[in-house]
Amino acid sequence: MKKPEKVLSVFDKYTKVVDKNIKQTIDDCSDLLMYQMMSYFMGYLDDNLQKTTSYGGKRFRPGLCLLFAEYYNCFDEAIDVATSLEIFHNFTLIHDDIADGDELRRGRQTVWSKWGINHGINTGDAQLILASKSLEGLLTRNPELGIRVQKFLNQKYLEVAEGQFLDFTYSEMKISDPSITENNIIDMLGRKSGVLVGAATQSAGIIAQVSEKEQERLWDFGYNLGLAYQLFDDMVSIWGNADISGKDELRDIIDKKKTLPIIYLYNNSNKQNSKVLERLYTKKGILNDKEVETVKALLDKSDTKQFVLQRANKAVEIVMDSIEKLSLDKNKKTKLIEITYALLPEAKEMIA
Amino acid sequence: MKKPEKVLSVFDKYTKVVDKNIKQTIDDCSDLLMYQMMSYFMGYLDDNLQKTTSYGGKRFRPGLCLLFAEYYNCFDEAIDVATSLEIFHNFTLIHDDIADGDELRRGRQTVWSKWGINHGINTGDAQLILASKSLEGLLTRNPELGIRVQKFLNQKYLEVAEGQFLDFTYSEMKISDPSITENNIIDMLGRKSGVLVGAATQSAGIIAQVSEKEQERLWDFGYNLGLAYQLFDDMVSIWGNADISGKDELRDIIDKKKTLPIIYLYNNSNKQNSKVLERLYTKKGILNDKEVETVKALLDKSDTKQFVLQRANKAVEIVMDSIEKLSLDKNKKTKLIEITYALLPEAKEMIA
Repeated sequence: MKKPEKVLSVFDKYTKVVDKNIKQTIDDCSDLLMYQMMSYFMGYLDDNLQKTTSYGGKRFRPGLCLLFAEYYNCFDEAIDVATSLEIFHNFTLIHDDIADGDELRRGRQTVWSKWGINHGINTGDAQLILASKSLEGLLTRNPELGIRVQKFLNQKYLEVAEGQFLDFTYSEMKISDPSITENNIIDMLGRKSGVLVGAATQSAGIIAQVSEKEQERLWDFGYNLGLAYQLFDDMVSIWGNADISGKDELRDIIDKKKTLPIIYLYNNSNKQNSKVLERLYTKKGILNDKEVETVKALLDKSDTKQFVLQRANKAVEIVMDSIEKLSLDKNKKTKLIEITYALLPEAKEMIA
Repeated sequence: MKKPEKVLSVFDKYTKVVDKNIKQTIDDCSDLLMYQMMSYFMGYLDDNLQKTTSYGGKRFRPGLCLLFAEYYNCFDEAIDVATSLEIFHNFTLIHDDIADGDELRRGRQTVWSKWGINHGINTGDAQLILASKSLEGLLTRNPELGIRVQKFLNQKYLEVAEGQFLDFTYSEMKISDPSITENNIIDMLGRKSGVLVGAATQSAGIIAQVSEKEQERLWDFGYNLGLAYQLFDDMVSIWGNADISGKDELRDIIDKKKTLPIIYLYNNSNKQNSKVLERLYTKKGILNDKEVETVKALLDKSDTKQFVLQRANKAVEIVMDSIEKLSLDKNKKTKLIEITYALLPEAKEMIA
């Protein structure tokens, strides 16, 4: 199997096109510091607001959109859409960082931690307006198509906000609240992490005017890829090798996050263990080392890893099944399978 | 002269149409609490999220848009635009309330104070997406026109965010910062308070496809009406009758707001008075009674009121001049003059 970095280098040329377009969209506005904050967050400006080329982020949403667009011969028409998707995605991150109180992202200060919460909110708002503005080129060149895509994107953008709403809602609930079921958590994760990837892949199909069936496959591919990505991410925080993943070990447990593993564990524990979890997850502040160990031990003794792995694998299966059914030639399908595993390195690690 | 309430009742029928459309736009989404938060803020749901008809807000932006649309015979096409404008305006209020830490608006809890800052940010975000989504009907029925209006609105929506950015920026600066000039403050106020009214009035002209010249007049009318409204508001906080205005007396001074009167006073004070103001406006926390008195005395001794009144009157003059030049019959112009004075009751009070 090829190395992930090698496989994902297929996105490099798309990243270039999209970053150029995003930069242009921002630069077309004005030189107000507000727009420089966006350029900083997107990775076009460094800490001193000087030009840099060390782009942040993986850009795999617009990458997938443009890859499919190339497969379906509608590359040029897809550029504005890929641009809008990436601008929107980064808008959500700017606001997410406020909600999560995260001061750093990719090793750099977040907008709110550099310029304050008010600017974080407002710059995010302006960036959300740019996500709409970036579709203007397409709308002008091809009104009928542009309107169709815009309607689709607005609907998906709303669903992402709904995912954020549900995330806050479950976070605020007691772990014993009957509405925190595994399926509800997966649905929330899907809106937060699957919808925008599904929007990226399906929109290529909308632009290419492929059949409804083919569009469904594109959606299933993207949505489940994004969902699987998130499920593996939640697992890595508990069972992953911090040296490989680069993530803080057991951070989600320390922060008492109600991730799928925790919810499954709680909902499938005996009374005694449920009580332990209830006590820890209603405690104020973060968990201490001993408490984290307690939770980790309960997780390890249970079949939680097996359950989450099964749900993640189910998502990966849908991804593979969708690839299989797509009306694309064998080479392209092989490429898509390679990309899937490159984007989900844990899929191999965990399953092994 | 007719009573303001009587004059402004011309907006009642437009309010009805727009509120129905906003409600529909929200209800078309889902029954998630996130959407109920919007309906609550818009005044369609009461504190217990039960239906109510006591709408909040004056709705004069969509009102002006639809009034002109009726004058120019394009009422039906303007409904979605008026809807988008009001949804956007209220989105800005939801986020403004967070920035200002305001727990109440129109006597009701704000979104963030009722559901927390995270929900305040996210519900505002979703409402901003709805401001775009609400244009879909027009885009579908009349793509070419819809795209033209959408481009115009996106540009104006960005300018409102720029105004917010500038407001934060000047608030964070020392009062002695040379970039806080009277003109810069007026430009900021214009973006925050004039642009959306100008967008409301000009968009009616865009929809009706009136001449560029006529569109400019519509813009000048709306922009300056919004600006004058804000300038009088700043004056009322200092020299107004709290019983009439319903505003907290001297609130802006207590809060050390860098309003136009304060900036003019500072920039035109002798060294001794400048130092007093510098000391008070760099002090932590709000001003106490004695300090407020000091500022008020300095304001009263200076020609500040005269200066601000002059700028407000200049804006009102442009409004009147624009009305005069509009290609509308005499009755309609008289109506517009009446509306202007009804929306700016202080214009009479202060000038008298």
